[in-house]
Amino acid sequence: MVSEIFTLKWDQGKLILIDQTLLPNEIAYRSYDTIEGVYEAIKTMVVRGAPAIGVASGYAMVLAAYKAPKTSCKEFYNYLKDRGEYLTSSRPTAVNLEWAVNRMLKKAEESAEYDIPQIIEKLEDEAVKIHEEDKAINRAIGENLLGLLKEGDTVLTHCNAGALAASEYGTALSVFYLAQERGFPLKVYVDETRPRLQGAKLTAFELYHAGIDVTLISDNMAAVVMSQGRIDAVIVGCDRVAANGDAANKIGTLNVSILAKHFGIPMYIAAPTPTIDMNCPTGKNIPIEERDESEIKEINGKLIAPEGVKVYNPSFDVTPAENITAIVTEKGVVYPPYKENLAELFED
Amino acid sequence: MVSEIFTLKWDQGKLILIDQTLLPNEIAYRSYDTIEGVYEAIKTMVVRGAPAIGVASGYAMVLAAYKAPKTSCKEFYNYLKDRGEYLTSSRPTAVNLEWAVNRMLKKAEESAEYDIPQIIEKLEDEAVKIHEEDKAINRAIGENLLGLLKEGDTVLTHCNAGALAASEYGTALSVFYLAQERGFPLKVYVDETRPRLQGAKLTAFELYHAGIDVTLISDNMAAVVMSQGRIDAVIVGCDRVAANGDAANKIGTLNVSILAKHFGIPMYIAAPTPTIDMNCPTGKNIPIEERDESEIKEINGKLIAPEGVKVYNPSFDVTPAENITAIVTEKGVVYPPYKENLAELFED
Repeated sequence: MVSEIFTLKWDQGKLILIDQTLLPNEIAYRSYDTIEGVYEAIKTMVVRGAPAIGVASGYAMVLAAYKAPKTSCKEFYNYLKDRGEYLTSSRPTAVNLEWAVNRMLKKAEESAEYDIPQIIEKLEDEAVKIHEEDKAINRAIGENLLGLLKEGDTVLTHCNAGALAASEYGTALSVFYLAQERGFPLKVYVDETRPRLQGAKLTAFELYHAGIDVTLISDNMAAVVMSQGRIDAVIVGCDRVAANGDAANKIGTLNVSILAKHFGIPMYIAAPTPTIDMNCPTGKNIPIEERDESEIKEINGKLIAPEGVKVYNPSFDVTPAENITAIVTEKGVVYPPYKENLAELFED
Repeated sequence: MVSEIFTLKWDQGKLILIDQTLLPNEIAYRSYDTIEGVYEAIKTMVVRGAPAIGVASGYAMVLAAYKAPKTSCKEFYNYLKDRGEYLTSSRPTAVNLEWAVNRMLKKAEESAEYDIPQIIEKLEDEAVKIHEEDKAINRAIGENLLGLLKEGDTVLTHCNAGALAASEYGTALSVFYLAQERGFPLKVYVDETRPRLQGAKLTAFELYHAGIDVTLISDNMAAVVMSQGRIDAVIVGCDRVAANGDAANKIGTLNVSILAKHFGIPMYIAAPTPTIDMNCPTGKNIPIEERDESEIKEINGKLIAPEGVKVYNPSFDVTPAENITAIVTEKGVVYPPYKENLAELFED
């Protein structure tokens, strides 16, 4: 990531976000001092990417705590709980959102013995901790992914699970930044990722500006580049992994996983452990958000289809565990059988 | 197709084309009186779709004949041959272009006993004949496709092989118009077909305006709609079929064919016999056009990716014969083994 650009920053009681809806044409930052503002930022994808949404949600809970009634601990906590539920409703698929909100609520509960200003301080520390942990997690995922690749490999990625989707290096893309640090040559093909074009607007943007060898293709070209022997591995992020290894990620990941399987190319899912939802038995239990028709019918505010035509716009799909070669976490590389091996990860 | 809109028309020595680059927002017609103008129209995709390119090329050769030197038959013919080669270079993948040019040259050669004004008349008749034959071919393909479907089926299509790609009803889409005429209920999902969005801009446009039940998805969503059991068959057109059954079609068709195979959904290629190139042994021999980077980096003239980033933009891909359930021609439905069964088609 170019050094002067950052995804999100906590700055003296305010959350600063780069407006990802304007990239790559405009670099603008927005400042938030209410949880309602952050709700809108998540909903409209000013901030997106499961880990970044998790980190932003931690800070959003601090913003809620600032505004909460201070008359009693109970009122304070109930307000936080209510605002946390509200925030969670902004995007249903990414589990990190719920995870971060619950972690903040737990911290508030555990701090009941303190007075409210002290609880707020503890909440702020906890949000910063979530943020710092995310950085460490991403670097560890990058290390684990690097162990799966050979020098000179070319990797296909989909959507954006990079610096813009998380802290510092991102999840799926962390491996490219680490490889670059170490002079380990890797090439990247990136799917543009319709309808919101996060691959073109965000992944191509951040990798290109970091000087990494990246080639942009439309989603339609994944099969042809695979058939030409150009791709050695697929690496993508995820929004939620179920206990059986099924993984929800940006729409189109299922396509890519089937193509990779067809061509015998390994498919790796980069998954920080907060993205793994052991309470969710299979992919069938993951709620899939449907987004507005305009995402498909319009580009840059201009119609690209007849106005009245029906549209189907699921924002995510579920890649079944059998299409996934390995799930790469900060704690290590998890291979099938996932049910047993993911459970083991949480036993430590 | 809505009755007042037409794709191409021969009007008193001029070729009139709807400008497909402006759809669905603007309906504008352009008039051509030189082969050089038609070359530009094909190159810039004012007219596109293998059959429509073939028909336009027939008329373009008439326009060339008008301008040809009339001093001797030899000079006249050599001029036509030169202009035919030039026209063929406008788009390398669709075989119909070369096929139509060769058919017109053959007609000129056969007519050597006549004087030049008479030859021109014969060329004009031949171009009209190509056009009329295309209409009949499309209707026959529609009939043959209809025989493969059940009432209530839902079909996925990719790109545009409809009225806008051919004469009257189109190839792949002819079945939907015929079904509608007969009250045979069918539903259509259409891939938007990046980078040029022919699915959104053309197929959704023509089917929606014809009152056919059509749902637009981004290319990324094909796997998810298939996994949900929504799709009973895939029907697409093609730009060239090799003698072994490999079929070149719009980029992304290979993706769709692999997904269809994975989910056990039949994949039908609508192929008028002029699209079948028995001189081309396999898909490896089909030239694949690469188009400008701007098709991927810009939408409606606005950058959607960093300006300097590398792009790969093949305009077509080749679906191997083993992914194709049947090739549906105007002469009948051809099943594997294609090498034998396609050859048999041309024996009659």
